[in-house]
Amino acid sequence: MLELHYGPGACSFVPHVALEAIKAATGEDFVAHAVKLHKGEQRTPAYLAINPAGQVPTLVVDGKPLTQIVAICDYLDRRYPQAGLLPSEPWARAQAMSQFAWMNNTVHPTFTHVFMPDKFADGDATRAELKRFNAALYREQLARIQGWIEGADPYWFGARLAFHDAYALTLLRWGGFAGIDPADYPAYQAYVARVAAHPAVAAAMERENIKLQTWRPA
Amino acid sequence: MLELHYGPGACSFVPHVALEAIKAATGEDFVAHAVKLHKGEQRTPAYLAINPAGQVPTLVVDGKPLTQIVAICDYLDRRYPQAGLLPSEPWARAQAMSQFAWMNNTVHPTFTHVFMPDKFADGDATRAELKRFNAALYREQLARIQGWIEGADPYWFGARLAFHDAYALTLLRWGGFAGIDPADYPAYQAYVARVAAHPAVAAAMERENIKLQTWRPA
Repeated sequence: MLELHYGPGACSFVPHVALEAIKAATGEDFVAHAVKLHKGEQRTPAYLAINPAGQVPTLVVDGKPLTQIVAICDYLDRRYPQAGLLPSEPWARAQAMSQFAWMNNTVHPTFTHVFMPDKFADGDATRAELKRFNAALYREQLARIQGWIEGADPYWFGARLAFHDAYALTLLRWGGFAGIDPADYPAYQAYVARVAAHPAVAAAMERENIKLQTWRPA
Repeated sequence: MLELHYGPGACSFVPHVALEAIKAATGEDFVAHAVKLHKGEQRTPAYLAINPAGQVPTLVVDGKPLTQIVAICDYLDRRYPQAGLLPSEPWARAQAMSQFAWMNNTVHPTFTHVFMPDKFADGDATRAELKRFNAALYREQLARIQGWIEGADPYWFGARLAFHDAYALTLLRWGGFAGIDPADYPAYQAYVARVAAHPAVAAAMERENIKLQTWRPA
């Protein structure tokens, strides 16, 4: 039995979409549990018992928890290769893992500096500087992703949806919260619109009750 | 042909040790290229051509570059399973990947805030606060790793050396540069001494010309 603990709009969206794609490809169903991050539900004793770091996502497989989206996605890809969520040829898969790792260890934390600067420093002035500096960095990182997806037809690796598509959507969507207008990245925005229309992505967005557009003019 | 571009003492130590272990297990040799980070060699046109992010490590396989240690280690483990650098049972491997991903996306960047705060903010006061805050965080993260390795006999996953052993050594060694005395973590320090004595680790340390002890009393 597969259970996913996710926070609406968080990076748990990546395995959430993957589980929808696996369900469509294999019939293997999953149970989705929402963790309301703005209400602090990730810090309840019940949740900390399955994820001591108090983060989403956690994938629970037959009662046993697994954390970290790199590990969750690698596990799901190995268990359900027929879902085609990563390229299967070894070198292509290695390059895909490299891009995924960079989004996970660089782009994602850059956004965290903008969205939750209290995780990295005390003091209002320091936190304001972290937000400013890292919002600029985040813009450059979104531009690098746009370079990668400019030939995406229709998805990151071609015909089939990959983990990367769900991550790329999430990262551009977060940009709105960092004051970044997605229209500044026209190719990326058009690609994300295609991704959002995929049935697995649409299903996950509906369950999480999230909208694509988060940016508002200042 | 396998070539590794490494920076002495950097996280490239993890695939460096892995390549030594693979050589011992399979006879597959590799070429090691030092990139002197303090001289800025990671920003030369020649290096940027193989790794546009200007980071180490880069693994070059038959002339094609692969970046990001999560991707490099996953690739090496799949190609040389007989080296035993990760547990082979799927669930144990997934848990191992989760720990590896956390060291990569959380512990490693915490140290970067202390060692290179200019990557995250402008201004001397802001950078000083980043160093202070993240050095404290780094201590907590080293304590979590110590909790994981307390039963290590002799290595992280038992009899055979894993990627994790090389990473754990690197992270405690970096602690010295963050003003952290490794003697504050006696179990971790004793474990790292065992890891350092492994022939693959000793060979990589000798080639990188690095010492285990980096801490100096203030």
